Amino acid sequence: MPNLIIGQSGGPTAVINASLAGAFSAAKEKGIKTVYGMQHGIKGFLRGETVVLDEILGSDENIELLKRTPASFLGSCRFKLPDVDGDCEIYEQIFSRLHALDIGYFLYIGGNDSMDTIKKLSEYASIVGSDVKFIGVPKTIDNDLAVTDHSPGFGSAAKYIATVVRELVCDCRVYDVEAVTILEIMGRNAGWLTASAALARSRDCEGADLIYLPEKPFDEEEFIAKVRTLAAKKHSVVVVISEGIRTADGKLLCERGENDSSVDAFGHKIMSGAGKYLETSIRKRIRGIKCRSVELSTPQRCASHFASLTDINEAFAVGAEAACAAVSGESGKVVIFVRKSDSPYECATELRDVHEIANVERKVPDEWICDGYVTDDVVRYIRPLIQGELSPIIEDGVPKMIRL
Amino acid sequence: MPNLIIGQSGGPTAVINASLAGAFSAAKEKGIKTVYGMQHGIKGFLRGETVVLDEILGSDENIELLKRTPASFLGSCRFKLPDVDGDCEIYEQIFSRLHALDIGYFLYIGGNDSMDTIKKLSEYASIVGSDVKFIGVPKTIDNDLAVTDHSPGFGSAAKYIATVVRELVCDCRVYDVEAVTILEIMGRNAGWLTASAALARSRDCEGADLIYLPEKPFDEEEFIAKVRTLAAKKHSVVVVISEGIRTADGKLLCERGENDSSVDAFGHKIMSGAGKYLETSIRKRIRGIKCRSVELSTPQRCASHFASLTDINEAFAVGAEAACAAVSGESGKVVIFVRKSDSPYECATELRDVHEIANVERKVPDEWICDGYVTDDVVRYIRPLIQGELSPIIEDGVPKMIRL
Repeated sequence: MPNLIIGQSGGPTAVINASLAGAFSAAKEKGIKTVYGMQHGIKGFLRGETVVLDEILGSDENIELLKRTPASFLGSCRFKLPDVDGDCEIYEQIFSRLHALDIGYFLYIGGNDSMDTIKKLSEYASIVGSDVKFIGVPKTIDNDLAVTDHSPGFGSAAKYIATVVRELVCDCRVYDVEAVTILEIMGRNAGWLTASAALARSRDCEGADLIYLPEKPFDEEEFIAKVRTLAAKKHSVVVVISEGIRTADGKLLCERGENDSSVDAFGHKIMSGAGKYLETSIRKRIRGIKCRSVELSTPQRCASHFASLTDINEAFAVGAEAACAAVSGESGKVVIFVRKSDSPYECATELRDVHEIANVERKVPDEWICDGYVTDDVVRYIRPLIQGELSPIIEDGVPKMIRL
Repeated sequence: MPNLIIGQSGGPTAVINASLAGAFSAAKEKGIKTVYGMQHGIKGFLRGETVVLDEILGSDENIELLKRTPASFLGSCRFKLPDVDGDCEIYEQIFSRLHALDIGYFLYIGGNDSMDTIKKLSEYASIVGSDVKFIGVPKTIDNDLAVTDHSPGFGSAAKYIATVVRELVCDCRVYDVEAVTILEIMGRNAGWLTASAALARSRDCEGADLIYLPEKPFDEEEFIAKVRTLAAKKHSVVVVISEGIRTADGKLLCERGENDSSVDAFGHKIMSGAGKYLETSIRKRIRGIKCRSVELSTPQRCASHFASLTDINEAFAVGAEAACAAVSGESGKVVIFVRKSDSPYECATELRDVHEIANVERKVPDEWICDGYVTDDVVRYIRPLIQGELSPIIEDGVPKMIRL
């Protein structure tokens, strides 16, 4: 039986290591002798950066720690392979390295760009007649992967956001002065994370007053009018916006301010500042009102101290399924979720062709977005994904982790 | 037996309501018939905004929820009473309201400015021969109250910061590109919160590389040199700074940038931007390095989902002690902590004259601050305060709260 290698790619999540734990555990159960990890994804693999995981992860305690450790244990990369029909040198290099380590199964945990890697590697394998199996394991806090009901990583980010919004709503209302608080949530194009702020609302918490997703054009005049109306009725107004909200002309709100913006290694715009922009706008246009903006920032994707147990279990399951699929001979596939029922929540894993998934972006449906808020569909859809907690293993008052 | 009233003032914390729970519970145990809450502190009290707490808090379930609900349950204010020897109209108004409700005991949960309120009200009571007893209950995430070993609220903020710094350190190191991350922590003048980032470091986490408190002048040239040296050795450099760091001329770093600043109701500067300023500075001066800044922002003071159990218990205890002290005839006093031992941690409550405490700011000792980091004294001092967790009561996947 050949060996198996696993890599992690793209932005980290709070539960991406649970998928690694699931894949490793299943691979060992299937009798695979050596499970390799690639450090810094395919980019590190190309430099020969591999590590044998068998000893490092070969204890129940370490698997438990791994499930609770945020960010990519193996390191990550943002690296897009060239098209298969172009220059093949890089593919030759990859396959020769795979051959040298006697690897028959290649698992890649990542988002859209990583599924593109699985797609291309499996295509190349077909072309050259390699029998290495390539399986994609989805992860993304943004929940923007197509075909699958949802993606591991999203549930924990949603749980964290809903919780923090509740706490912030409490904090914002303590003074009896008119104040507007703007919370800026991650999400370039898909508003799933921002929408999850709607789960903050319940009998004991009014939640956010307004929620704006990037899927619909943002009208600043209407927004100011809505804030004015709300501020006349209640002293604390809480607005949740996505970092990626845009005006009708397609221009990012954060580009309207004086904030500079730059691009990451994939050429994606690094954004910040939509909240700051609106804070300034409200201060200028609604006299005498206190306004501040809060960016929830990176903790959204790495707050494993309060991750969703459902998410951790599902992340573990997709990792395990991927290993089993590879061993059973599947390739060019991705493990996805199919939801059977919302309540009681039932969800199964399935395999799908990676071509269906790679490079497609799934957004919040139009009919789930209403005028400055979201519909109950959002709550019905997200609620099951944030259920349960896995107590951190505490040492010296802080959650214990595992480090490579 | 006369009635008792409790108020909350100043910035909220994750455990300020545990003090309210403790005060309420002890007052009822002492046989006080009616326990009033003032809404929005003394400012609301002056407008007659009081609420009877007996029914609202009269169940074990609600007390448990209150201990887990962040921010000031009763609302808060930032309001400083005039000097007692000046215009007395406001004092007459307060005492006439106290008389109307047959209040004999007045507890005020707050920070430095709130202890000033207790000082002035007890002074006025002496002058006019009133036998209303005034007791202060300390709270502040900043830990800047004098005389007491530490303040309730700090331990939970420190636990949250240490935890989030650990998670962010994991997140920051996933890519193999040279990157500097700057984490900006709350703290105008006292660096206790920023110092608590040192608790992130342990066998399984390298923690932050540099820590800068507002107590020592910040030298930008030295800082850039240090970052350069670190970046040559490791790919991810994490720097934790206080929002209040200043250059040797006393100028706030955030005032050096183009960020506008404003003042709150106490005339304190509202600051943000030291992290942003340094981010820009590093980008300009260290070519090719990736740099971003993250403000930990408001969640630092309201993350009750991961509060310190030690802090909750101590907050409850100071509230209870204050009620007992008032009933036993004490006035013009504050409940403080005296630490007997670090390990095993032993800490007792004591009463001190409010004059010793009000308007004095306690900073991190000079000898606990070293060149770009803090000494082990910081860890020894803070570690016991972050021990233990009180599981949130979860409903629908998010922590349940109680609302007035």
